[in-house]
Amino acid sequence: MPSVAKNSPVHSSLCAALGYQFRQPNLLQRALTHRSYAAEHYEKLEFLGDSVLGCVIASYLIAAYPNLAEGELSRLRSNLVKEETLVILAQQLDLGRCLKLGEGELKSAGFRRPSILADALEAIFGAVFMDAGFAAAEQIVLKLYVPYLANIDLKTLGKDAKTLLQEFLQSKYIALPTYTVLATEGLAHEQVFQVECAIPALKIITRGRGASRRHAEQQAALAAYQSLGKK
Amino acid sequence: MPSVAKNSPVHSSLCAALGYQFRQPNLLQRALTHRSYAAEHYEKLEFLGDSVLGCVIASYLIAAYPNLAEGELSRLRSNLVKEETLVILAQQLDLGRCLKLGEGELKSAGFRRPSILADALEAIFGAVFMDAGFAAAEQIVLKLYVPYLANIDLKTLGKDAKTLLQEFLQSKYIALPTYTVLATEGLAHEQVFQVECAIPALKIITRGRGASRRHAEQQAALAAYQSLGKK
Repeated sequence: MPSVAKNSPVHSSLCAALGYQFRQPNLLQRALTHRSYAAEHYEKLEFLGDSVLGCVIASYLIAAYPNLAEGELSRLRSNLVKEETLVILAQQLDLGRCLKLGEGELKSAGFRRPSILADALEAIFGAVFMDAGFAAAEQIVLKLYVPYLANIDLKTLGKDAKTLLQEFLQSKYIALPTYTVLATEGLAHEQVFQVECAIPALKIITRGRGASRRHAEQQAALAAYQSLGKK
Repeated sequence: MPSVAKNSPVHSSLCAALGYQFRQPNLLQRALTHRSYAAEHYEKLEFLGDSVLGCVIASYLIAAYPNLAEGELSRLRSNLVKEETLVILAQQLDLGRCLKLGEGELKSAGFRRPSILADALEAIFGAVFMDAGFAAAEQIVLKLYVPYLANIDLKTLGKDAKTLLQEFLQSKYIALPTYTVLATEGLAHEQVFQVECAIPALKIITRGRGASRRHAEQQAALAAYQSLGKK
C-alpha cells in the first residue's frame, strides 16, 4: 500500500465518490494522513469532523422525526455516528487505499483498522467544513448517510440487542437473561471472548463471540432475540 | 416569577442582548420552556444546540490556535462548553427571568438552577440554528463567548486544579498528593463532601468542600495549588 501523491487518481476517485471537489486539496491530504506518517495528520480535523457529523445528524433527525423525544433522537444519533457505521461508509469509499500511514501501521494493516478508517472519515467531514463551511459538509454527510437515514427502524430506534431482549422479556414478565463468559482466547491485546446468554424460562441458550465481553454479550443477545420468533 | 407572554418586553430584551431577532418567535418560546411547564419544551433544541455549540467552538479553536494539538483543543473546548461557563453566560442574559417553568419548579427556584439555565442557553443556540442556520448560530455563540475566547489561558489550557497540581509536582519529582474524605454531611440528595489534600513533602494540607467528592477534591487541590507560590 504505497503512499499516494497529491491529486493522484486515487484522490480523484475519492472526490468523485464524495461528490465534492476540494478548493484546498491540502485539507483532503491532511484528512488522509495518519500521525504515524507525518506531523500534519488528521487528528484535529477528526476532532472538528466528529462535531460536524453530530450536528448534521441531530439537525436531520429533529426535522425528520418531529414526534420523537430527545432521548430517542439521541439514541438514534449514537447509532448513526458510531464507529461501526463510519467504518462501513469508509469501506464503501475505499478510504483505506487513500490513507497515508507510517511503515509500522502499514505492516500491521492499519489501512484496514476500524478506528483509523472511522477517524479518517470524520476528518474528511472536518476538512470539507474547513474548505467550504457547514452547508457543504452537511451535504456530504447526508449524501453518504442516505441508506442509513432511509432505513431507520423506528421500532427499535437503534437499540442494541441486549436492550431489545430485556425490554421484550420485561413486557412478558419473564426473568431477565444471564450472561456468562465461557472462555477467553488469544493474547492480551487480541483476546476473543465467548459468552453464553441463557433464558431458562424460554429454554433459550445462545452463544456469542467478540473482541470484548460487551461485544460478545451483544452477539449472544442478538442470537437469543432472533430465536424468540421461533418459540 | 410569572410566565412570560410571547413577544413580551422580557423576550424583547433577551433578543436585544443576544443581538438576534427570531423569524420564528415560537422557537425562542420553546427554548425557554421547561418540561414541567408544557409538552413543547426545550429538550430537543438543547440536544441540537449542544452539538452546534461544540462545533462552533471546535472550529474557532482550530483556526485561532493552529499550533495546539487535538488533545489540547479538546480540553480547551470542554472548559468552554461546560455547565459552569454556560451558567455565567445565561446569568448575563438574565435568562432565568424568561424561563417558563411548572409550579413545582417555580417553588424550588428552578429559574436559578444551574442545569436549567445551561440547558436553556444551549436550547437557544439550537433555536437560532433552526431559525436561520449554522452561520447565524455561530455568530451568536462567538459574540457571547468573546470574553472567554479573549482570555484563554494557554499556560493552563483549561486544565483543572488536580491536573495542574499533579503536573507541577511531577515536574519537581515530588510525591503526588493524597486526597481523603474527612466528612460527608447532609441528606442523600444534597450531601456536602469535605476532602483533605495532603502533600507531605511540602508540608501542605488543604481542605475543600463540594456537592460531590470530585468537586471537593478539586477545591482542595486548588487551595494546595494556590499555596505553592507561598512555599
